[in-house]
Amino acid sequence: MANSLVNIQRSVSCEIQNSWDFLVDRLDDVDLHPMGAKDVLVKILAAPINPSDINMIQGTYAILPDLPATGGNEGVAQVIEVGSQVTSLKTGDWVIPKDAGLGTWRTAAVLSEDDVISLPNDIPLLAAATLGVNPCTAYRMLCDFEDLKPGDSVIQNAANSGVGQAVIQIAAARGLNTINVVRDRPEFTQLSDRLKVIGATHVIKEETLRRPEMKELFKTCPKPKLALNGVGGKSATELLRHLQVGGSMVTYGGMAKQPVTVPVSALIFKDVKVRGFWVTQWKRDHSHDGSAFRDMLDELCSLIRQKKLTAPVCTEVNLQEYRRALDAAMQPYTSAKQVLIM
Amino acid sequence: MANSLVNIQRSVSCEIQNSWDFLVDRLDDVDLHPMGAKDVLVKILAAPINPSDINMIQGTYAILPDLPATGGNEGVAQVIEVGSQVTSLKTGDWVIPKDAGLGTWRTAAVLSEDDVISLPNDIPLLAAATLGVNPCTAYRMLCDFEDLKPGDSVIQNAANSGVGQAVIQIAAARGLNTINVVRDRPEFTQLSDRLKVIGATHVIKEETLRRPEMKELFKTCPKPKLALNGVGGKSATELLRHLQVGGSMVTYGGMAKQPVTVPVSALIFKDVKVRGFWVTQWKRDHSHDGSAFRDMLDELCSLIRQKKLTAPVCTEVNLQEYRRALDAAMQPYTSAKQVLIM
Repeated sequence: MANSLVNIQRSVSCEIQNSWDFLVDRLDDVDLHPMGAKDVLVKILAAPINPSDINMIQGTYAILPDLPATGGNEGVAQVIEVGSQVTSLKTGDWVIPKDAGLGTWRTAAVLSEDDVISLPNDIPLLAAATLGVNPCTAYRMLCDFEDLKPGDSVIQNAANSGVGQAVIQIAAARGLNTINVVRDRPEFTQLSDRLKVIGATHVIKEETLRRPEMKELFKTCPKPKLALNGVGGKSATELLRHLQVGGSMVTYGGMAKQPVTVPVSALIFKDVKVRGFWVTQWKRDHSHDGSAFRDMLDELCSLIRQKKLTAPVCTEVNLQEYRRALDAAMQPYTSAKQVLIM
Repeated sequence: MANSLVNIQRSVSCEIQNSWDFLVDRLDDVDLHPMGAKDVLVKILAAPINPSDINMIQGTYAILPDLPATGGNEGVAQVIEVGSQVTSLKTGDWVIPKDAGLGTWRTAAVLSEDDVISLPNDIPLLAAATLGVNPCTAYRMLCDFEDLKPGDSVIQNAANSGVGQAVIQIAAARGLNTINVVRDRPEFTQLSDRLKVIGATHVIKEETLRRPEMKELFKTCPKPKLALNGVGGKSATELLRHLQVGGSMVTYGGMAKQPVTVPVSALIFKDVKVRGFWVTQWKRDHSHDGSAFRDMLDELCSLIRQKKLTAPVCTEVNLQEYRRALDAAMQPYTSAKQVLIM
């Protein structure tokens, strides 16, 4: 059976070749691996282009696959056929990768049953395709660093990013206030309105962090226990200034490509805790205890069904047009996430 | 009785007057407060000049008393007389302050019983006078941030400071390796030898942190789980580089007057935890549960009796010569701690 599969189905994948120094990508026809007893054949339905995918192609990411490699670390697929010893999945199931590095920018793949985790297929396709990285990052950062209770506050920069929007929505569903910092831009008011519609309590520009308006804001909103930093540099230092005594700042990205600078007095006298979070590592640390991942996905899917968590604004692009999607994903101030549709 | 005490004993105190902007100190005769039923009259025996005392005089410290104020936050005193309702102390007991701000640079004081904690008087005077800040800081940082087991490593800068020397000794008593970073200086070899005599595993210069020698060092010594930073700036960033995945850096001082700069990748991919420690806050947080402070002092005194923990090199200066001691304490590269003797 495995052989016939190879013959009847060919995978089209966006492949990265040669050096990591620059992007050398092309669309290739690749034979599928023969299927083993514990493998599943999946059809990839949709796969986003995340900033970390770009970093991986550029060779600047913490994990790099052997070359040539298929790009893409996230996406949703449908099980087409299961091996004879597969127990956790059946034909028709939706699945997402358990770990980074799977190579999701392709039409089909033969994967080990253990490489994927199932997802209910009653949620929107784009929500499923973008669930495994950003909402999971947002969810864990809101759970694992500070004990947040309804009425508490969270401050974050990059509030318009995929993680940022998930933070706003998950926090709102829990009754948490969010103070959302975005870079100034001509359409600031529209962006602010859009983020408030999905649950943001406050939306402010970076420069407001240094202004007396913040005092006004904190008259009605408690100082944040948790700061989420996807930027680094000055922006991170400004977040720290507004943190409660004993609060935590968690860094999950460094868009500004500058380190996090922490005043000594904030560490000693304000007891701020400066931490980092990487969802890939979290998944690896919890790979032998599937229930934590399962529980998180169940809760996130429940929020999606209640329309409390939606996919970020996405631009759907056919896999054949992947190069245009990559170009768009690398533009600054991109609000829409590029999602490859197979 | 209280009145007669005021008459028979006058306190000579080194007092800080007027503005925090610059040091305006003088030696004054000050009447003692009348004694209450829960007060004790103490004779101060010895009180060190710590960097934080200087910062307090300069007005740059996190806590500043109302002016005019008596300088000094640490020291050992002997109980001369106890009020009628005092239960925890008796005449002859040695005591040290429970909190900062007591003003120890004086010959005598009437204090509340609750302001002080007793100390066995079978340890050397200088060890007692310098026990409450630096060894307590070292002890807590070694206990409260990482679960260190014999054979584990700790890296620290400012290894020749009061805290640094206490870290070396307490760590050695627990079977921990210490990698001790000091600034280069003409007498580096003598300093290195002296720190090794008190238990340092490795003593290296700051620039060595950036050199291939570190690889050699880590062939025989595990990478540190804990980094202790009393400097800030580049020195702190260099410590971070050598930390184990998931390790913690604890900042307790900022001699370089530069912030702690943390690469985003160290936070996200190495999961380093950047924290701060302030022994004054710890004491306040534990003031209603005296047992943690008592247990720590007991363990430190036990190490002192076993000669595993000694006072740092001290220069004893008569209180009348306080100005010379302050000048000496403000010199860079000062190895000897100035201790006022009353």
